[in-house]
Amino acid sequence: MALAIAESERVRGTTSPNPPVGCVILDDAGRAVGFGGTRPAGGAHAEVMALKEAGTKAQGGTAVVTLEPCSHYGRTPPCTEALLEAGIKHVVHAVSDPNPKAAGGASVLRKAGVTVESGVMEREVSTGPLRAWLHYARTGRPHVTWKYAASLDGRIAARDGTSRWISSETSRKEVHDLRAKLDAIVVGTNTVIKDDPALTARDADGMPLARQPLPVVVGMSDLPGGAKLRHTALHLRTHDPDEVLTALAGRGVVEVLLEGGPTLAGAFWRAGRVDRVLAYIAPALLGDGPAAVLDAGVSTITDAVRLTVEDVTMSGPDLRISAVPRT
Amino acid sequence: MALAIAESERVRGTTSPNPPVGCVILDDAGRAVGFGGTRPAGGAHAEVMALKEAGTKAQGGTAVVTLEPCSHYGRTPPCTEALLEAGIKHVVHAVSDPNPKAAGGASVLRKAGVTVESGVMEREVSTGPLRAWLHYARTGRPHVTWKYAASLDGRIAARDGTSRWISSETSRKEVHDLRAKLDAIVVGTNTVIKDDPALTARDADGMPLARQPLPVVVGMSDLPGGAKLRHTALHLRTHDPDEVLTALAGRGVVEVLLEGGPTLAGAFWRAGRVDRVLAYIAPALLGDGPAAVLDAGVSTITDAVRLTVEDVTMSGPDLRISAVPRT
Repeated sequence: MALAIAESERVRGTTSPNPPVGCVILDDAGRAVGFGGTRPAGGAHAEVMALKEAGTKAQGGTAVVTLEPCSHYGRTPPCTEALLEAGIKHVVHAVSDPNPKAAGGASVLRKAGVTVESGVMEREVSTGPLRAWLHYARTGRPHVTWKYAASLDGRIAARDGTSRWISSETSRKEVHDLRAKLDAIVVGTNTVIKDDPALTARDADGMPLARQPLPVVVGMSDLPGGAKLRHTALHLRTHDPDEVLTALAGRGVVEVLLEGGPTLAGAFWRAGRVDRVLAYIAPALLGDGPAAVLDAGVSTITDAVRLTVEDVTMSGPDLRISAVPRT
Repeated sequence: MALAIAESERVRGTTSPNPPVGCVILDDAGRAVGFGGTRPAGGAHAEVMALKEAGTKAQGGTAVVTLEPCSHYGRTPPCTEALLEAGIKHVVHAVSDPNPKAAGGASVLRKAGVTVESGVMEREVSTGPLRAWLHYARTGRPHVTWKYAASLDGRIAARDGTSRWISSETSRKEVHDLRAKLDAIVVGTNTVIKDDPALTARDADGMPLARQPLPVVVGMSDLPGGAKLRHTALHLRTHDPDEVLTALAGRGVVEVLLEGGPTLAGAFWRAGRVDRVLAYIAPALLGDGPAAVLDAGVSTITDAVRLTVEDVTMSGPDLRISAVPRT
C-alpha cells in the first residue's frame, strides 16, 4: 500500500475532478509487476494503468489500490471489469468510495469470487493523497487548506509591513512543491495590490514547475494594470467564500490553497470554510505587525475556533503545523 | 548519569544560589550504593549526601555527578576532600564548573590518583537542571524564562479580554510544576490589576505545593488594596529589566519565570534579557485580542528577534515550544 500511496502522490494535482489514486499489481507470488496512477480526467484510472504494465503477470494476482475500484461507466469503463478480465484474484484497498455512483466495486468483485480487503492504511490515505477529493465527494465543495507563515508571536509581517522572509528557504520550497499538487491558489485583491505575487509553483532556481495551479483573486477591487496575475488569474468579484468555492467547483477544482491575507482568512473562517490549517511558524519574534487572521468571528474565549493538531514537524528551523477544525 | 540527573531534578528550586547538583555513588562492582542532591544553601553538597548513604561501600568506587566536584572551602568543605577520604577511585561528571573559585576540582582529584571523565551527558545537564545556574555563574544575572500561553494566531486573550483557559489543563499543570522549581515569578503591575493572580505553585486540586517561588511585581503603580499578592510579593518600582535582575540576584535568585503581559515581555526583549522562551500554543484561533509581546524593539523584518527551537512537544492538545535567542 505504501507503494500505491507513492503512485498516487506522483499524480496528485493532475487528476481533478477525479481522485489521485495509486495502484500496484502483485503477481501470484506477491511480486510487484505493475504500477499506475490515475491519468488526467477522461484518461485511464490507476488500476487500468497498473494492469497494462503487469500484462499477463496479473493473472491470479493481487491489486493493491488506495481507493475502492469503481464499478460504473463514466468516461471510462468500470475498473472492476478490467480487474476481473485480467484475472485478479485479490483486491486490497485503503478507502471505500464515498460516491454512491461509483461505490459497490467491492461487492461486484466479491460476487465474482475475488477476495476483497478494505481499510488498509486507510488513515494515511484519507488524511493524505485522497483527503481533498474525499471532502469534495462528500460535500461538493473544494477542500480548503489555509496556509500562512508567521513569527512565533503570530505576526505575518513586521511593523513596517516587510515580510520577506519570515519563513525559511526550506519552508518556502515546501510551499512551492505543495502548490504544484493543488488545483487553485486563492488570494485577495489586497494581496495582489500590496505584494504583486506570481502564485506560481517554482523550483529552487525560481523556474516554474511543470504543473501550475489556477491563480484566483477574490475581491471587488480591480487588479492593478501591471499586476503579474492580471492575465492569468481568475478574478472573482465577491467576498463570499461560498460563492468562491461554488465557482471553483464548477471548474473541477478539488483542492484549494488559501494564501490570502488576514481579512480573507477571517472571511473563510467565519463562513466555516477552512478544512485544514498549514502554519509555518518561524522561530522569531516581531512584537508588532499584522496577525495571520483578522476577525474569525470570535469575541470571547469560549467561542475560540478550536483545532486539533494533526502533525508537527520541523521545516528547516521553522515549525510546520498541520491542524484541522475540531468537529 | 541519568540517575544523577534525576537526583538533581529532585532538589531543583531548593538550592539557590547554589547549583542543584545530583550525585550517584557506585561501589567497586558498579552497583549504585548512594544517591544525593544538593541541600539548601549552607547545607551539604550532592557528593557528600551520596557518600553518606554509600558509607564504606564507596571505597574503591565511582562518583557520578552532574557538576565537577568543588575544591574550595565555602560554607562547606570541598567535595574533592570528601571523595578522596571515602576512597573514591573514579569520578564521572557532566559539566565543568565555570566558577573560577570552585573550578579545578578535576585536577585536584587527578593529582590524587583519581581517574576523572568529564562531558558525559553534558548537553542534557547544561540545558536541563543546571541551565539557569550556569547562566547565573557566567553572567551574574538570574536566568529568565519567558513563558506565555497563546492561540495559534498569537493571541493571549480574546477581543473582550477573556483568556481562561486558552491552554489546556495539562499545560497549566506543567506550569505549576515548573513554578515550584524556580526561585521567582515576575509579572507587571498591569497583570496584578487586571488578573489578580496568586502566582503560587498548586497541585491539580488547587492546593499549594511545598515549595513556592518568590512573587515579584514590576512597575510604578500601587498594587490594589485587595490584591492576593499584596502582602507576599516583592514590588520593584522600576521598568528596567536590569534593575529587576540586579535586585533579584541580590536575593540569591538564580532562575526567574517571566509571566507578565505583552508590555513587560517587550521591555525584557528590548533589553536582551530573555534567555529562553517557553510557549504553550493552543490549537485555537481568536482572530482578535492582544498579542504575547508588544514592542520587542523590531520595526522591520531584518531586525526580527531570531530564535532557535530547542524542543517541541505536545502538552495535551497544546504545543509546548522551548526556544532560545540565536547567538
